[in-house]
Amino acid sequence: MQKVKPALLRGFDQEYLPQDQLQFNRLIDIIRRNFELYGFLPIETPSAERREVLTSKGGVEKEIYALTRLAEADDDEAATKGALRFDLTVPLARYVAMRERELAFPFRRYQIQRVWRGETPQANKGRFREFYQCDIDIIGREKLSYLAEAEIPSVIYSVFREMAIGEFRIRINNRKVLRGILQEFGVPDDKAAAVLRTLDKAEKEDAGKLRGDLEREGVAAAGKLLDLITTRRTTDETLNTLSFLKGEIGKAGLEELRNIVVAIRQFGVPDTAFAVDLGVVRGLDYYTGTIYETTLTAHPDIGSICSGGRYDDLASYFTETQLPGVGISIGLTRLFFQLREAGVVSAAGSSVDVLVALLDDASLDQALAISPRLRGAGLNVETQLEPRKLARQLQYADRAGIRFVVMRGEDEASRGVLSIKDLHRGEQQEVPEAGLIEALRAMHGQPSQAVAEQA
Amino acid sequence: MQKVKPALLRGFDQEYLPQDQLQFNRLIDIIRRNFELYGFLPIETPSAERREVLTSKGGVEKEIYALTRLAEADDDEAATKGALRFDLTVPLARYVAMRERELAFPFRRYQIQRVWRGETPQANKGRFREFYQCDIDIIGREKLSYLAEAEIPSVIYSVFREMAIGEFRIRINNRKVLRGILQEFGVPDDKAAAVLRTLDKAEKEDAGKLRGDLEREGVAAAGKLLDLITTRRTTDETLNTLSFLKGEIGKAGLEELRNIVVAIRQFGVPDTAFAVDLGVVRGLDYYTGTIYETTLTAHPDIGSICSGGRYDDLASYFTETQLPGVGISIGLTRLFFQLREAGVVSAAGSSVDVLVALLDDASLDQALAISPRLRGAGLNVETQLEPRKLARQLQYADRAGIRFVVMRGEDEASRGVLSIKDLHRGEQQEVPEAGLIEALRAMHGQPSQAVAEQA
Repeated sequence: MQKVKPALLRGFDQEYLPQDQLQFNRLIDIIRRNFELYGFLPIETPSAERREVLTSKGGVEKEIYALTRLAEADDDEAATKGALRFDLTVPLARYVAMRERELAFPFRRYQIQRVWRGETPQANKGRFREFYQCDIDIIGREKLSYLAEAEIPSVIYSVFREMAIGEFRIRINNRKVLRGILQEFGVPDDKAAAVLRTLDKAEKEDAGKLRGDLEREGVAAAGKLLDLITTRRTTDETLNTLSFLKGEIGKAGLEELRNIVVAIRQFGVPDTAFAVDLGVVRGLDYYTGTIYETTLTAHPDIGSICSGGRYDDLASYFTETQLPGVGISIGLTRLFFQLREAGVVSAAGSSVDVLVALLDDASLDQALAISPRLRGAGLNVETQLEPRKLARQLQYADRAGIRFVVMRGEDEASRGVLSIKDLHRGEQQEVPEAGLIEALRAMHGQPSQAVAEQA
Repeated sequence: MQKVKPALLRGFDQEYLPQDQLQFNRLIDIIRRNFELYGFLPIETPSAERREVLTSKGGVEKEIYALTRLAEADDDEAATKGALRFDLTVPLARYVAMRERELAFPFRRYQIQRVWRGETPQANKGRFREFYQCDIDIIGREKLSYLAEAEIPSVIYSVFREMAIGEFRIRINNRKVLRGILQEFGVPDDKAAAVLRTLDKAEKEDAGKLRGDLEREGVAAAGKLLDLITTRRTTDETLNTLSFLKGEIGKAGLEELRNIVVAIRQFGVPDTAFAVDLGVVRGLDYYTGTIYETTLTAHPDIGSICSGGRYDDLASYFTETQLPGVGISIGLTRLFFQLREAGVVSAAGSSVDVLVALLDDASLDQALAISPRLRGAGLNVETQLEPRKLARQLQYADRAGIRFVVMRGEDEASRGVLSIKDLHRGEQQEVPEAGLIEALRAMHGQPSQAVAEQA
């Protein structure tokens, strides 16, 4: 038979072996559990939306995947009017506008789903065309307390602390403060967006080039502006530095920022894990208050692993109701890729705790009686279904990353015992039948590596 | 501003309010937990595959959604060569063929993801264009024990028992037995597929019409065949009935079926939950051994909620290696839709256990100190961020389905106590600060409804 080459599409290629998928799923579980701990509610939205919904806020059309049919078909809206979402924010806006009357506000939602973007894939940067986003947003109706902006870092803190991926810092800034700074530096309003985009590159590009760009954009004291933005200070030093802001918007922003810093501390985030950082700019016009980026201290090259901000109106394209909100997003596919590259996470052990060996057909009944007992105790169990030489069954378990193998041969059966092999420690012990669960629990509690003498 | 109507695409419209999403997620969790209990490992595959991968096994082209770009773009494989998967079996075949050397066989995988099919949506039948499938398969290399076919019903039994959706029956049959039956009835091999498709409708269509169809397809004793297929018997009666099979394939099938019935019982599935049923036919040629359908006793109209079977070669289009397997699939979006229609599942309570009220700005610090304590005890907590009248906060909690509201006003603070309101029981009690967690746990253990006199 003519074979088809089993291959993946470029950019649609983040597919894992089970042991990596398990590790990925553990990160998802941590994210989900923490989002729920902080009172966020789950939603999922369809993968495809109406095209005019996706382009309403100015989605980049050439990066949007539209749907069609492989062969012509009648009357399919999706194939003529549908396209895949490129983020979770536009679907959220559509969702809230559609269901305004059924939702309780402030609406705290989390959403963990895939999105699709036709950008150029860059595997070395963890940039793919299909990837997971994990978003939380708090949406108010007509108004939303600044405390929502202060609560977000406590959720992020809780997530990344549990992930145990090393020291991280949630860096915050305020769009009004940035606008105030630009005013003090004499940047006219119509140049502000361009200047902000230039400043957004301050961490990556050469200072001389940046200075030239800023001067061309009409910033008189470009060097001084760059200094202000890039100098590292403590949060309180930064707040003091900003007292030079005299314009209305700058003063309002500084006041907001001060209050939010007080509240972030009240929410229990230590100063080691967050900082006001004027270098956080965020390109999007969308944001109007606090903006967030999160970096790993040991891996600044990875860039921001969790970003977002406060916005004034989520769904202005869909409804007259003003819906101010604040949210952040974790790009988990990219993060996972980069954490693996950096050696911060590695493949998990198997989710299977125990393999019950099958030594011969005659002992099937006995093998099958063991598995339900173990499952009843909450252990994940694979029953070997092919009687094979014990050595091959142990090899299979080892290869699959299963730690324990439980065996009951004729000899063991005649004496009312079972054997448990711990493949991580290379040890084996016999236990009375009635003591199986207890023995496994005790062995499970032991470290995976036996001390050198025993190995 | 010109508004865009917030609406969904037809068939891409199974989107839930949070309380329904929570219920849906609980079903997913049950499925996943049971799949893992039985030693299945997770994988996910990209949403889009190469078109030739999807059409290799004869996917229906006009039902496949291909990808394109909303506006033209350079060099994007996905937009010229990609399409969305229509099931999880073809991606599994491609996955196993690609990673044959890295996987341990028998490979037991589970996969819970969305698929897309351009069929005509029929909401009343729970048929949508985007829906979840939850699949398990056991794939052998070169060979696979019949015990794998016997183990599958024990997994299904475990899943649906935990879902508590009423009495169900896993109905099994065997393709070789069906072929043997057709031989006994003189159906030539080239008519077998057509006759099976007709028999597959036996539960839905008029007996007279079916009989006519079968006669046209060359079945001489059509009435007798229909009788054989549709008569209800116990498993052992059916096995006895089949002793009339004399041909090689029929006898081999009967032997398989007998062995598998013995093993299903060994795997712990009671006769109340499974039955050999000759009316299970399954349209696909693909299956070669045991085939499964599962029906809810109280809701036969819902049809099969979980189907699958044994096949001889998973990935013949991609690799020379023979990969026999057995698998089943739960179409969860449809099942959830129909269970809700039938009133078998209803919206869940909120995932938020406790709302911590904020009575005034001055008590913010106190309110914020309560939440982490509760989260530390594993409770999901929303902190109210807007000081509002207590009545409005209680109304918000009630509307959001949150059962407990914890309050500490000035008066309570001065006396070192907290108040807990149980909205489900309409009761309120004061507890000393140190006893908060304990009191909540005790109240949580009480039934949701207070007795009538107290309500």
